[in-house]
Amino acid sequence: MHILVTNDDGITAPGLLALAQAMRQCGDVSVVAPDHDWSGGGHVKTLKRPLRVRKVKLPDATAALTSDGAPSDCVALGVMGLLSRKVDLIVSGINPMANLGQDVTYSGTVTAAMEGIIWGIPSIAISLDAGRSDLGDIDYDAASKVARLVIRTVLEKGLPKGIFLNINVPYLAADEIKGIRLTRQGLRVYRDRLDRRTDPRGNDYYWIGGDAPTGVPEKGTDVGALAKGYVSVTPLQLDLTAYKAISTLSQWGWVNEDSVPVNGAVAAGLTELILV
Amino acid sequence: MHILVTNDDGITAPGLLALAQAMRQCGDVSVVAPDHDWSGGGHVKTLKRPLRVRKVKLPDATAALTSDGAPSDCVALGVMGLLSRKVDLIVSGINPMANLGQDVTYSGTVTAAMEGIIWGIPSIAISLDAGRSDLGDIDYDAASKVARLVIRTVLEKGLPKGIFLNINVPYLAADEIKGIRLTRQGLRVYRDRLDRRTDPRGNDYYWIGGDAPTGVPEKGTDVGALAKGYVSVTPLQLDLTAYKAISTLSQWGWVNEDSVPVNGAVAAGLTELILV
Repeated sequence: MHILVTNDDGITAPGLLALAQAMRQCGDVSVVAPDHDWSGGGHVKTLKRPLRVRKVKLPDATAALTSDGAPSDCVALGVMGLLSRKVDLIVSGINPMANLGQDVTYSGTVTAAMEGIIWGIPSIAISLDAGRSDLGDIDYDAASKVARLVIRTVLEKGLPKGIFLNINVPYLAADEIKGIRLTRQGLRVYRDRLDRRTDPRGNDYYWIGGDAPTGVPEKGTDVGALAKGYVSVTPLQLDLTAYKAISTLSQWGWVNEDSVPVNGAVAAGLTELILV
Repeated sequence: MHILVTNDDGITAPGLLALAQAMRQCGDVSVVAPDHDWSGGGHVKTLKRPLRVRKVKLPDATAALTSDGAPSDCVALGVMGLLSRKVDLIVSGINPMANLGQDVTYSGTVTAAMEGIIWGIPSIAISLDAGRSDLGDIDYDAASKVARLVIRTVLEKGLPKGIFLNINVPYLAADEIKGIRLTRQGLRVYRDRLDRRTDPRGNDYYWIGGDAPTGVPEKGTDVGALAKGYVSVTPLQLDLTAYKAISTLSQWGWVNEDSVPVNGAVAAGLTELILV
């Protein structure tokens, strides 16, 4: 079992070290992580510039590779041949802030797992709901234990094809965590505000600022489970199709071939396109 | 009707100019676009550095704003107060390459529309299947007409809440396009390969290279519609939950509160978490 460990906070983050140590109890670990913080960096594929890779050592002397690419680039590099051995599982984290609701497309932690699934490799993102505190002050003990428990289950049972897991752990001691909840993606409430400032040369610049996001702690969701002290496990996929909306939009005169009989679209005369 | 136009190829891209001109026939247009190419740049929220904004003019003398942020940052800036007027609709494009299947989380064009939906504003991404040719040589006439037609329909009917549209236009003359198909997200087939090179100083560097992606032209999908000469309109959402997988994973002993009776989880004794 060969596990590729990555993150979005960069190679020096304590959460990466904690995850690498936890994963070493589940299999052989290779670390390929960004050389700087990519939080909020999205699902990147770097095609217009080359990527550099350096050999480094984690604080516990674990050999690791670091790249100037995004977390998703690190995954791509790892599975495309940078690592000579085939990768069986990708685990990304441990992020010190929860990745809930609509966070998943922004999150470097989660998009690393997205990249893994695109390569057909079981992938898992793990985040700890420790808030915005300093990276160094965070206790990753319970989250490491959860990571180990979940990954052992995944290795034993096997993830359904095309599915990756987004795991969020409440910031509690291990014996205070109430259990694991299987959840759907909830709703984040962003509270960003634009902060306009003027630099010493008199030119304006803009910060995306404001308060940290909250969420709607609805039952059955990632936000809800975490708020009640449970680990949230959300199975995610890369199909973003809004299937329910297809029937609404089909009333606009647009044809959906999945829902019409053969030749029905043509017979209905709905496909004519007048471009003026 | 105030329309925010953006793209991921940057402020100088001919596809942005074509879109701005087409949208001016649907409402008042503000352009806020990146100052460089962000293709494949993902859903970015730039929080760790400030953003700069400059006033520029498009080649037809349209006033525009350009920022050093990602397409999604440009949308956030626009709706958070950079534009004094409320934004009613966000349109991103016209990208000179199709954005199909799993492309949607990588694509700057599509993630700009994702950002719009997060702000609660109807949003549309539009791409032209013109391949990898030089940006300047592309005829955006038919795609502009499609954009106008679709946006007029959206303005008349109103998009369902939380839904954004991913539109792909075949690279054909307007009278050769067969019609509009309402589609689901199909399957992209990526053919990336790692290209390792050595720089003049003897250090290795890596390109994510290989051939352009293909796709599975299945009936009912974006890939399939485009291959047959139809405009593909795919309604997308930000809920990535793999609902079908929840029942599979619930057999692993993880409880889903949406599918158990009240107190059923506790009664079933499945929630105990042993962290060792």
